[in-house]
Amino acid sequence: MHRLLILSRHADAYRGLIDAERLPDLEIVYSDHCDVVLGEPSLIAPAIGRLSSITWVQSTWAGVEPLLDPALRRDYVLTNARGVFGGLMSEYVFGYLLAHERMIFRKHAAQQEGRWDAAPPGTLKGKQIGLLGVGSIGAALARTAKHFGMRVKGYTRSSEGCADVDEYFHGAERIAFARDLDYLVCIVPNTSGTRRLVDAELLAALPPRAVFVNPGRGAAVDESALADALQSRRLACAVLDVFQHEPLPPDHVLWRTPNVLITSHTAALSAPEDIAPVFIDNYRRFAAGQPLWHRVDFEAGY
Amino acid sequence: MHRLLILSRHADAYRGLIDAERLPDLEIVYSDHCDVVLGEPSLIAPAIGRLSSITWVQSTWAGVEPLLDPALRRDYVLTNARGVFGGLMSEYVFGYLLAHERMIFRKHAAQQEGRWDAAPPGTLKGKQIGLLGVGSIGAALARTAKHFGMRVKGYTRSSEGCADVDEYFHGAERIAFARDLDYLVCIVPNTSGTRRLVDAELLAALPPRAVFVNPGRGAAVDESALADALQSRRLACAVLDVFQHEPLPPDHVLWRTPNVLITSHTAALSAPEDIAPVFIDNYRRFAAGQPLWHRVDFEAGY
Repeated sequence: MHRLLILSRHADAYRGLIDAERLPDLEIVYSDHCDVVLGEPSLIAPAIGRLSSITWVQSTWAGVEPLLDPALRRDYVLTNARGVFGGLMSEYVFGYLLAHERMIFRKHAAQQEGRWDAAPPGTLKGKQIGLLGVGSIGAALARTAKHFGMRVKGYTRSSEGCADVDEYFHGAERIAFARDLDYLVCIVPNTSGTRRLVDAELLAALPPRAVFVNPGRGAAVDESALADALQSRRLACAVLDVFQHEPLPPDHVLWRTPNVLITSHTAALSAPEDIAPVFIDNYRRFAAGQPLWHRVDFEAGY
Repeated sequence: MHRLLILSRHADAYRGLIDAERLPDLEIVYSDHCDVVLGEPSLIAPAIGRLSSITWVQSTWAGVEPLLDPALRRDYVLTNARGVFGGLMSEYVFGYLLAHERMIFRKHAAQQEGRWDAAPPGTLKGKQIGLLGVGSIGAALARTAKHFGMRVKGYTRSSEGCADVDEYFHGAERIAFARDLDYLVCIVPNTSGTRRLVDAELLAALPPRAVFVNPGRGAAVDESALADALQSRRLACAVLDVFQHEPLPPDHVLWRTPNVLITSHTAALSAPEDIAPVFIDNYRRFAAGQPLWHRVDFEAGY
């Protein structure tokens, strides 16, 4: 019999969804004496020292940074949530892209003044979007971009697996990738190779009409270089859901930077109805002694 | 030799695009002595009385109301612009749908207060959209709705031609169509059969969470019933691009109604680069004596 501990803000919902599945040889427990853990990395990390019999941890998040602290044990298999955030990420990114083209804030301001504003909106059709990172989320964004008639550039370490990307760039081609983009979207995982990937040099390569969107990881961006680019109008706008430090500190320059839209790490929240199937699928493999999906490499960080 | 008169705010752009095509037997003229007219119905209507030799008028708009005035001549073939607005309409409608789900205005207000707002946004996935009218624009909206994982209900006179519509309703089934919708989008043409199709009864059938979007024709809506429904919160929100009278008069109740977003008939502007190919294609048929595309029935009104 396997013993599952759930450490999640949505523990009740997960318990209901998992109970309903009647998985074989599985008991949900409320004790440190467990071999399987499902939950948020931020809740698991402080407890992991005393969970001495764990063999597998399934994260409800894509990012597992709290569990990568070198001071913490690594004698278990860690899997993350993958392949479930593409739809929500697409709604977030294209919600803000369309808000920009359709001038949704400007039109609303005109309305509040009782003004019939005839300014012609723009269109996504024919515009260029650059995806920094083309994993499952990038592939979902590329698909939506093609739906709206955009041209898609992708920047990856080496992979070229997504058919909706029109042109790939790798390694040192970062500047050629950024040149002539209308939209740059950052969806790389947080690794040593992606830290401050969006720096002053990359931002300077973007045309001044470009909009930067970051629903990925705050560590991938040099925030002061970004604030500079916006302040000096070398960049039209930034839409930011993630930051180096969250919540974004009250005195942070980005609160006072013009043409920034800030959301609070809510672009793609982990919903139990999306994540429970990932755990259930993986549990069946675990019980059958098969390799698990979405295994995290502690060194690579994803 | 055919003689073409262009009556458009974008006459220069149209002339350039048509000249570049080197159409056979066609001369662009600046005289009432012409047999073909291309332009905006609002500019053609006041001139049509003296254009005594016209045989064909190509409208740059989808709507041709100014030319349907029974006092005006009808001894020519009238064709409208069709099949070119689906992409722009889709960007307009889904821009506002995503703004609603992603709480774009609420998140912006939180940001302006320096507040880290953790409220979880919604998603289009699994929501129901109802399309009042399923022509080429409705088909484009249905396709985008399916892309975002929505369920699509369609209300038409009789046609059921779009595979992206999950369920069709006709005639007296208007109330069954409206019940349980998250979004109602009105894209019917302005005809005697669609006038005030969106009335108090239809609005009362919508659930209070519903959002009404009208990028179609103002005449299709009973505006005071709509204002009532919004004022009494029997409807969550309305996004309106068209009105009974445009520009919307300064004293109109909709300027002061809560939860209305007003745009100024800019959802899908006629761009010469989109419309010129419609004219060019039709001209080749005209010159060859073939029936023209998108012929308007003066009685039906579309």
